[in-house]
Amino acid sequence: MSTAPVPEAYAADDPTGFTALESGVRSYSRAWPAVFDRAVGATVRSEDGTEYLDFFAGAGSLNYGHNEPRLKKVLLEYLADDRMVHSLDMLTAARRDFLETFHDRILRPRGLDHKVVFPGPGGANAVEAALKLARKVTGRESVITFTNAFHGMTLGALSVTGSSMKRGGAGVPLVHATPMPYDDYFDGDVPDFVYLERLLADGGSGLNEPAAVIVETVQGEGGINAARAEWLRGLADLCSRHGILLIVDDIQMGCGRTGGFFSFEDAGIVPDIVCLSKSISGYGLPMALTLIRPELDVWEPGEHNGTFRGFAPAFVTAAEAIRTYWSDDTLERSTLAKGALVEAHLNSVVARYPEHGLVSKGRGLARGVQLPDGDLAAAVCARAFARGLLVETSGPSGEVVKLLPPLTVTDAELRRGLGILDDSLAEVLAGPAS
Amino acid sequence: MSTAPVPEAYAADDPTGFTALESGVRSYSRAWPAVFDRAVGATVRSEDGTEYLDFFAGAGSLNYGHNEPRLKKVLLEYLADDRMVHSLDMLTAARRDFLETFHDRILRPRGLDHKVVFPGPGGANAVEAALKLARKVTGRESVITFTNAFHGMTLGALSVTGSSMKRGGAGVPLVHATPMPYDDYFDGDVPDFVYLERLLADGGSGLNEPAAVIVETVQGEGGINAARAEWLRGLADLCSRHGILLIVDDIQMGCGRTGGFFSFEDAGIVPDIVCLSKSISGYGLPMALTLIRPELDVWEPGEHNGTFRGFAPAFVTAAEAIRTYWSDDTLERSTLAKGALVEAHLNSVVARYPEHGLVSKGRGLARGVQLPDGDLAAAVCARAFARGLLVETSGPSGEVVKLLPPLTVTDAELRRGLGILDDSLAEVLAGPAS
Amino acid sequence: MSTAPVPEAYAADDPTGFTALESGVRSYSRAWPAVFDRAVGATVRSEDGTEYLDFFAGAGSLNYGHNEPRLKKVLLEYLADDRMVHSLDMLTAARRDFLETFHDRILRPRGLDHKVVFPGPGGANAVEAALKLARKVTGRESVITFTNAFHGMTLGALSVTGSSMKRGGAGVPLVHATPMPYDDYFDGDVPDFVYLERLLADGGSGLNEPAAVIVETVQGEGGINAARAEWLRGLADLCSRHGILLIVDDIQMGCGRTGGFFSFEDAGIVPDIVCLSKSISGYGLPMALTLIRPELDVWEPGEHNGTFRGFAPAFVTAAEAIRTYWSDDTLERSTLAKGALVEAHLNSVVARYPEHGLVSKGRGLARGVQLPDGDLAAAVCARAFARGLLVETSGPSGEVVKLLPPLTVTDAELRRGLGILDDSLAEVLAGPAS
Amino acid sequence: MSTAPVPEAYAADDPTGFTALESGVRSYSRAWPAVFDRAVGATVRSEDGTEYLDFFAGAGSLNYGHNEPRLKKVLLEYLADDRMVHSLDMLTAARRDFLETFHDRILRPRGLDHKVVFPGPGGANAVEAALKLARKVTGRESVITFTNAFHGMTLGALSVTGSSMKRGGAGVPLVHATPMPYDDYFDGDVPDFVYLERLLADGGSGLNEPAAVIVETVQGEGGINAARAEWLRGLADLCSRHGILLIVDDIQMGCGRTGGFFSFEDAGIVPDIVCLSKSISGYGLPMALTLIRPELDVWEPGEHNGTFRGFAPAFVTAAEAIRTYWSDDTLERSTLAKGALVEAHLNSVVARYPEHGLVSKGRGLARGVQLPDGDLAAAVCARAFARGLLVETSGPSGEVVKLLPPLTVTDAELRRGLGILDDSLAEVLAGPAS
Repeated sequence: MSTAPVPEAYAADDPTGFTALESGVRSYSRAWPAVFDRAVGATVRSEDGTEYLDFFAGAGSLNYGHNEPRLKKVLLEYLADDRMVHSLDMLTAARRDFLETFHDRILRPRGLDHKVVFPGPGGANAVEAALKLARKVTGRESVITFTNAFHGMTLGALSVTGSSMKRGGAGVPLVHATPMPYDDYFDGDVPDFVYLERLLADGGSGLNEPAAVIVETVQGEGGINAARAEWLRGLADLCSRHGILLIVDDIQMGCGRTGGFFSFEDAGIVPDIVCLSKSISGYGLPMALTLIRPELDVWEPGEHNGTFRGFAPAFVTAAEAIRTYWSDDTLERSTLAKGALVEAHLNSVVARYPEHGLVSKGRGLARGVQLPDGDLAAAVCARAFARGLLVETSGPSGEVVKLLPPLTVTDAELRRGLGILDDSLAEVLAGPAS
Repeated sequence: MSTAPVPEAYAADDPTGFTALESGVRSYSRAWPAVFDRAVGATVRSEDGTEYLDFFAGAGSLNYGHNEPRLKKVLLEYLADDRMVHSLDMLTAARRDFLETFHDRILRPRGLDHKVVFPGPGGANAVEAALKLARKVTGRESVITFTNAFHGMTLGALSVTGSSMKRGGAGVPLVHATPMPYDDYFDGDVPDFVYLERLLADGGSGLNEPAAVIVETVQGEGGINAARAEWLRGLADLCSRHGILLIVDDIQMGCGRTGGFFSFEDAGIVPDIVCLSKSISGYGLPMALTLIRPELDVWEPGEHNGTFRGFAPAFVTAAEAIRTYWSDDTLERSTLAKGALVEAHLNSVVARYPEHGLVSKGRGLARGVQLPDGDLAAAVCARAFARGLLVETSGPSGEVVKLLPPLTVTDAELRRGLGILDDSLAEVLAGPAS
Repeated sequence: MSTAPVPEAYAADDPTGFTALESGVRSYSRAWPAVFDRAVGATVRSEDGTEYLDFFAGAGSLNYGHNEPRLKKVLLEYLADDRMVHSLDMLTAARRDFLETFHDRILRPRGLDHKVVFPGPGGANAVEAALKLARKVTGRESVITFTNAFHGMTLGALSVTGSSMKRGGAGVPLVHATPMPYDDYFDGDVPDFVYLERLLADGGSGLNEPAAVIVETVQGEGGINAARAEWLRGLADLCSRHGILLIVDDIQMGCGRTGGFFSFEDAGIVPDIVCLSKSISGYGLPMALTLIRPELDVWEPGEHNGTFRGFAPAFVTAAEAIRTYWSDDTLERSTLAKGALVEAHLNSVVARYPEHGLVSKGRGLARGVQLPDGDLAAAVCARAFARGLLVETSGPSGEVVKLLPPLTVTDAELRRGLGILDDSLAEVLAGPAS
Repeated sequence: MSTAPVPEAYAADDPTGFTALESGVRSYSRAWPAVFDRAVGATVRSEDGTEYLDFFAGAGSLNYGHNEPRLKKVLLEYLADDRMVHSLDMLTAARRDFLETFHDRILRPRGLDHKVVFPGPGGANAVEAALKLARKVTGRESVITFTNAFHGMTLGALSVTGSSMKRGGAGVPLVHATPMPYDDYFDGDVPDFVYLERLLADGGSGLNEPAAVIVETVQGEGGINAARAEWLRGLADLCSRHGILLIVDDIQMGCGRTGGFFSFEDAGIVPDIVCLSKSISGYGLPMALTLIRPELDVWEPGEHNGTFRGFAPAFVTAAEAIRTYWSDDTLERSTLAKGALVEAHLNSVVARYPEHGLVSKGRGLARGVQLPDGDLAAAVCARAFARGLLVETSGPSGEVVKLLPPLTVTDAELRRGLGILDDSLAEVLAGPAS
């Protein structure tokens, strides 16, 4: 969801009346004034039978598409058999199966020996647990964040999030975090980390010694900003040299969004802490993980807990998703190929409108096209919706049309969606600016 | 989960080996070293076929028992029909059905006109949203909390939580909250609110003007401390007189745990903000609500959001649970009757051990018996587990054995569970203190 | 200066025009619209030759009166001889003389082995140094303060100050301090420390473990509230039992104001840290001390510093003041006798107006009479000024007329001042309330 | 005082025994183990009759030298005549004379219409008042600071100070300040303000909107880093464009240290708030000013106050110093000429040791020579002390030998001091590194 000013059209967006029962804080429902009901793969259908191609995918939570059939099967069986649904951190067969599958097929093949924390049901819980642990382990409070970062809406997660609009919702000053420029923030004119390195080396800099750096390899909400592998390596190296813990928030970009299971694999780095959520269950079920190096496992029993940290149906679909999609490299190669297809298309789009200064952005199947401003981007999304495509904006001014199709999207669907995007862009960029 | 020191027995609690893959922060699994697999109503079964009577009920998340058949039916149908699972705040038929049902059967009959915020999947999200909004609306940062409060583990929620052990996990100083004595904190020797009233009235008191008070009507984690209705009325009156927002955290005590749907109904108060989660879905599915008075609905679209705030299967079971259990007062009367039964039993238990100073505590079906210390309470729970009853401790030293059976527990189950409790107490209190 | 609303009369208070060059934050000059020029002992003279009896004494900074002749003599000699004036923490003869005199005549005879920190020129520096050191030594952030405390206007000192008006000047939320009820805050109805003891003992109370307690033995700005000796002993005992450092802010009440050199001597307690300033130089020269137990002396060289922490003329008058007034108990006995005289008089005043509910307050020569509200108290002070007496208000609503005459005031002056007070009270309480 | 590790020599620095009565936090007295007693102009004499040339000048507090005869005369007269010494913010003839003189000879000729706040006796009070007011006026908490800034040791001032050693003394996390690179922090490789401008313009940057920027035109403690006039103009322009208040801390660099009365005059900028202290009294007497634009004068009477904010003898010498030194441009021209002399000399020194990478730094008579490390710089100061010259180190590692002679130093004294510096450098750089 973009942080741009809300278009006028949002005022008259209640197609049915029931939205009056809900707070005005709702957002997506304003851009997409339809009542959705059914969904399979990349297709969503509204109550009136209209079909939409979904290039939003639950904000990256549906990497395997809506209601993936193999996951649906094990989920229905699990529920039908009256197996345990709600279990906090009690031991369950479902928990064991997930832990072992995750260990055997994800962690071990990648040489990772991290322990799993089940921090709660959502991404913000994963981030809060990461920050709490990093601070407790190091005895330091401060965390380095990056411009246009997004990590969540709870107080700890919000403190390391960039959007001034979202920060304004806190009602208290957000402290203990210092923003640093993300990769390419100055278009290559300023060397990477020059400022952070200097501040860390200079005993008079005024920077509180940081417990951790928290980073997304590709900033989704921040505008589909993809960091280069060498930048990530530089960051990991800097953390290592200064005794700062490296937290990768892989909530939106993990689970294959950029190709490999973890988005940081390409860069060859090993974070101290990894946050996962969104697509980890594979079925849109609330689930989150905080992965921690074994030596960071210092919490006492119960020092961090939470009611929905043992939601077994999510463990079941998560384990099945891993078995289905991560037993070989088929999905990874497919994602990279589809990503390349989208990239090529977006490059051609950019070339088509030289006077508008569009920018093609992203990595893997996290893609976007940057428009001159948020109003134009919102207009493109509105035209796309009218043509049956769900795409949303991101970026500090909502200026990027974001493409997050399911990784399982077919090439035909991909081409159809890109075609709708083309038409929407043409309509917006050709006509008078909205 | 108690905050008492972890018994030695916890060290050798890994019955299967897979716990080594998980962080040592897990807690319940230490007290109950079994691998659970199936569950219906008040009965949970481990892999080896042992059955346990569950008087823990997912820490209050399973008020209608495990895998309630009517909820299971609509859940399976919804999933089988490929209806939308993950929807953020998009409009869906499931969302509409929940909002309308909740409005028609819960809010309207109780004269409440609150709007619904879907703050995220868990209780901490409901609390974080409540605190953020209260602060934004009032322009003040400070919040009044109560001794032995528990509101969650994210930074904002943790700041208003009492447990020093859990606070110690934050790694940053927790600020913007001032604890006040909960009802009966001084055994009736000090008038209610005498300190808070004076601090508020005294321009020189040094108390930062509070945005809100956050309170549980019965403190579950804090030791099953039940506030009196007159105390709650006094608190509501104080808030009203001083322009302080009243937040009731009904996450554990709402959804019928104390009799009525909301635990504050008896007291005749109307909070400005209500937090719900745990049993709201009725099936252990992650879901949370923050209910706000219409005039507090000041957030801009998207100023608070979250990935799993539109988990439709939870909407489906939540609506069905309301239709099933809250269309008349059958459940409420049953809960009060069962609560009275448990209370009478606990009173007899207390009378049986005059030399041990036990205390019978609670309201509705949130009950507990307080032992002299946490070690004894943990020992009672361990003995109960060995006899097939799941009960846990709570309270600042883990000194309260907590009884949170499903509201749908049968009288026979209730008596069986209380009998196991009796035997366990006898074993512990008769033998040498552990 | 009271925190009560500024009387209307303050609007037209610029007798000369030059006040327009200064910020409107000035306060005393509003109540006393005269240009003062000369001062000796308890007498101040304005430019137009009007004489005023000064029962304000520089807010307690002039315990030995204005321009005490013996101190004046050594000060003039020191300055005339071109001896070092500004020395930071360089070693000087003046510094040595002060340190040795202070050690020999003040610390040693009282069995105190505290080390001296020169924290900067004013009381706020002494408080800031005390708080910084207490936090560094204990590794904790939180400090216990008391209702209606006043400790200064810099950010750290303001955080432990009660006045909401003064706190409002900070512009940031003031954190890391929790206010507790001062002695007799509930008129004896609530046992001392009942709340603080419970919060400290209860691991679930939500109180951050405190580094220190900071307390005034008599709250001057807070309304001349005198704590009982047994309350102070109870507090010292509580601190000792809980490993909390006890800081006594003796800035206004030390240097003999209550009789003995330190105001805590009577109670027989030994604070871990003592703050002194105001009258320590004896001549109104800026000077402050933070006295610390030797085992707290953990700062590195320069970890706390300040430009004016070595103002030698103040060392010179301070040493001479000690030699003059603290070589025997003459001043102490005189102060107690004069204090008794004032107390008896105020008691008779209180008895004279039974319908107004006046209260006689204080200890030693820190005295006050509490009126029904701040407007009446301000009116009394205005009438007194018109009659040639300088007295000011204090208390959360400015409801206390505060009497802080020089300790060297003569009995004749004392009686004259009390007579003016009587007349002013009569005028105000007899006429229509202002 | 440098923040570098304390040389071993400091351990055996107690020449007389009385230092045992004082906290180990004292610092200058360690480098200069002599007991000083008399001082006139640029000469300080120890008890044993040794004379030292003082190129430290009270850390910039003695711009007119020790015990300046004309100021001494008015000071002695004022004190001898029993005129008011301690006056808080009462109106006094001395206050009027200072305010009018300051207005007529300093503010008005420079086109400044600022109002005067008397914030307390020292520089930290001036900074605290500036920060409090800027935050209150803007309703924002955050302040932009610069690398290697020094603003004082009270909590608010320390929060905007760079030194990690000094920050470590606070005992609480220092928040609400973000450090930005000072001029030339990257040796010209990174454009000025590129990072700050981007963060301010980017709604997703995560930078809390700042109330103010606080800056020194030359960083004295930070290593005699002199900002260029164009950098200062750029900063003022940036503040103006973004609605951020500009605070210039002119405590050490004001009062003529760089030539003009205010150090920012050359740059042609007009700060919203100016902090003055140190040399404002001209005689080393504690005094401070916070100058504020009239429209910022929003505090209520008494919302900021302080006991020693009306120290009349300082007003007297301050007014006389202005009359003496700022009625024409003689001092300004002399300072610039002497500054040029020192600069030329330091440049020659740098050229003399090409292999050591010395750097000549500063502006006006705030000068320094940067050595390869703090140990070498401390060794130079120690050798200079042995030869009769007082010079100290500054900079994040104490690597800069700082020259702050009185502005009234004679050319002969200047040459003598520089000669001692030469010899000391030669001894240190020729011999084995200490």
